[in-house]
Amino acid sequence: MVKQERALRTREALIKSAATVFDRDGFSVASLTAISSLAGVSNGALHFHFANKAALADSVEQAAAERLDRIVTAHEGTAGNALQLLVNASHDLAHLLAEDVVLRAGFELSRDQVRGGDQGLHRQWHEWVGAALKRADGEGVLSEVTPEAVASSVVAATTGFEVLGTQDPRWLSHSTVTRFWQLLLPRLAAASVLGDLVADGSRSK
Amino acid sequence: MVKQERALRTREALIKSAATVFDRDGFSVASLTAISSLAGVSNGALHFHFANKAALADSVEQAAAERLDRIVTAHEGTAGNALQLLVNASHDLAHLLAEDVVLRAGFELSRDQVRGGDQGLHRQWHEWVGAALKRADGEGVLSEVTPEAVASSVVAATTGFEVLGTQDPRWLSHSTVTRFWQLLLPRLAAASVLGDLVADGSRSK
Repeated sequence: MVKQERALRTREALIKSAATVFDRDGFSVASLTAISSLAGVSNGALHFHFANKAALADSVEQAAAERLDRIVTAHEGTAGNALQLLVNASHDLAHLLAEDVVLRAGFELSRDQVRGGDQGLHRQWHEWVGAALKRADGEGVLSEVTPEAVASSVVAATTGFEVLGTQDPRWLSHSTVTRFWQLLLPRLAAASVLGDLVADGSRSK
Repeated sequence: MVKQERALRTREALIKSAATVFDRDGFSVASLTAISSLAGVSNGALHFHFANKAALADSVEQAAAERLDRIVTAHEGTAGNALQLLVNASHDLAHLLAEDVVLRAGFELSRDQVRGGDQGLHRQWHEWVGAALKRADGEGVLSEVTPEAVASSVVAATTGFEVLGTQDPRWLSHSTVTRFWQLLLPRLAAASVLGDLVADGSRSK
């Protein structure tokens, strides 16, 4: 049991180190030796857990997908309509892309063509954004806009924040995301709810 | 003179081949042999024009910067306010990102951290978008919005179209960009000009 726990901790450490090295050097250049030494384990230990660099990248992306899932479900129980839910989740996503190297590296890997990334994380986000906007439409909190059209514009903008934020953290700042929603909400929201919506988000914690 | 012309043509062919290979394989993996053979020249001829892969990438990015400059200046002489100018230029940018491998590879290289890209093309676009919106504000065609806030949202969204479009061309389609402006224009434009604005753009040619 103790042995299993230690193995799990080593695996977690390797995923975090891999994310750090992928984020810094890119998938193609990243070396397994750099990853194992950052995790403080031997090359042999790395290969016990992961067959190769591709398997490590898959695990980083999988860990990022679980984090993204936690971000969007964190607000589900809270009060507020689905449009506010979307605003809040986008703030959390931007905040965690800046803070959490596993989430950030996961998105980078997901859009890395050389590695064969298929933008799975971006599609996961797109699906959730689309569902939230459809729900908002059902709640009657949307103005005369098409949920799908709004979803693609929101996903494009948040993808831009993510990509530009890898070099300039201001793109992922609370004020950048707030300004985006201050611009968009008056166009998206039904007049009856606009006054209640908070563009700078109500954090889940 | 004929010799100079031939050298210039070889250089152009190498830049286009490099863009094709960078776009397909990424900067880190791209091989000089693949580039010279695609251009139909020897490795020696490649090295006569470009010292190394980094110099080739710089030239692709420079060629893309010139194309971006042509995109934004193409509309300058035409009738219409600066907001319509921005709409038109964003349509041309999306269209050419889908069609022109040198422009597309330039943007990819510009945001490639491994290669040391400093997002110069994105900043060039951001500066122009910001200036166009300031001009629109001066013309009185903007509603009560801040040009800078609009500029960062427009640049984030167009960056998202560019990045997501590398794998799914629908993100760069005319209808995606049109839907984005249909969403944004009623919020951006002063009531007096909204009816005159064309979300699907009036092409320069």
